Amino acid sequence: MISKNQLKLIRQLGQKKYRKQYNQYLVQGEKNVLELLNSPLKAVDIFATQAFINTHQSQFSGVNFTQAEEESLTKASTLVSNNAAIAVVNMPTADLPNNSGLILALDGVSDPGNLGTIIRVADWYGIKHIVTSTDSADAYNPKTISATMGSFVRVSVSQVDLPEYLKTLNMPIYGAFLDGQSVHKTQFNGEGVLLMGSESHGIREQCANLVSDKITIPAFGGAESLNVAMATGIILDNFKRQA
Amino acid sequence: MISKNQLKLIRQLGQKKYRKQYNQYLVQGEKNVLELLNSPLKAVDIFATQAFINTHQSQFSGVNFTQAEEESLTKASTLVSNNAAIAVVNMPTADLPNNSGLILALDGVSDPGNLGTIIRVADWYGIKHIVTSTDSADAYNPKTISATMGSFVRVSVSQVDLPEYLKTLNMPIYGAFLDGQSVHKTQFNGEGVLLMGSESHGIREQCANLVSDKITIPAFGGAESLNVAMATGIILDNFKRQA
Repeated sequence: MISKNQLKLIRQLGQKKYRKQYNQYLVQGEKNVLELLNSPLKAVDIFATQAFINTHQSQFSGVNFTQAEEESLTKASTLVSNNAAIAVVNMPTADLPNNSGLILALDGVSDPGNLGTIIRVADWYGIKHIVTSTDSADAYNPKTISATMGSFVRVSVSQVDLPEYLKTLNMPIYGAFLDGQSVHKTQFNGEGVLLMGSESHGIREQCANLVSDKITIPAFGGAESLNVAMATGIILDNFKRQA
Repeated sequence: MISKNQLKLIRQLGQKKYRKQYNQYLVQGEKNVLELLNSPLKAVDIFATQAFINTHQSQFSGVNFTQAEEESLTKASTLVSNNAAIAVVNMPTADLPNNSGLILALDGVSDPGNLGTIIRVADWYGIKHIVTSTDSADAYNPKTISATMGSFVRVSVSQVDLPEYLKTLNMPIYGAFLDGQSVHKTQFNGEGVLLMGSESHGIREQCANLVSDKITIPAFGGAESLNVAMATGIILDNFKRQA
């Protein structure tokens, strides 16, 4: 059973200020909780249905499972649909990536669903770390975690003073603009930063000034723009096909 | 002012059965209504704020604008946020595409948001027509229209008996599977069908049997799959970079 205090904690962890205060976050739903259990991340508590516990308890020794009814899980969940499990997890600490491989940087990408989708496609292309501006969406927002479809366990996200961080790097910074060079014609050598801005504001001046290569996805039709997650996926595919 | 009967119609057009009955659908929000007004599609009625009407009326003569308060537009809207305009539009008729160019076909893609995102990226890559199985999401669902970000005016969508339709074509059918040939190594000649299945069921047997070329997006990391809209965008980019 989920106690009153546990319920209160779950509800609080839906909000950023409490996630910061307790240094914990929520992972919800069967797929994401299973990815969590299969990862090195540490779950403090897992509230789950008896069916979930019966199926998975033997695989994961040392995990603190608490049985709960589907109805109370759905009631406790900060997401619309959740009927199998909710985990309370300690936030990991991540080192900032430096001067090697491909680094993904996001400037002002404020929608948690977009960030989650970007984490998922970054994971597909083997990116281990994303840096974001401090006004980007919170990687520990339940909507972000949900949209990652489990990829949150393999990709860490750090909020940084983005222009200051970019200045410390000594590698090409590829910035996505609507008027850059076609990614179909750009040579990538496997190292560098891919910098993406938000759909509404693009890459803002402070970061734009640091871009060494302006790139763009060539358009063949009438749409004015692409969603930032979609654009990130397409550019990563172009990077990786050459790497 | 939006009359009681008009409000009733708007509410009804949020549901598929009434869209079918009246052969009309809704376009909501400033961006989408402006795209509509700039297109050959015919708006029967446009309910809009005085500010919207003042700004745009002179550009669009012959359009039937009805002034409404932001509050009543938001109340009437079937979407969470809408504060500028709602249009009631007659459904266009679309011819099925046949044996030329690149045709996008969707098997069982049932989420309206995904369909809308696919319409948007298809428009980016110049695809004019999408065919979907009869159990795919409705292209006239308000959530679909909203997610297209205006691209619904340039891309038509037909629900068909998909296996029967595919059988009538005489061109390669590229089907996206997790175990196909890498799209980075596939030769596309600009003509053919790109067939995408849903995330949960993939391309179902009846359609899978008709696929001539199984293709896949190569993975470099740990994610098990990509969202169907993301995968569609990435594959279209691979098709078009060669075309």
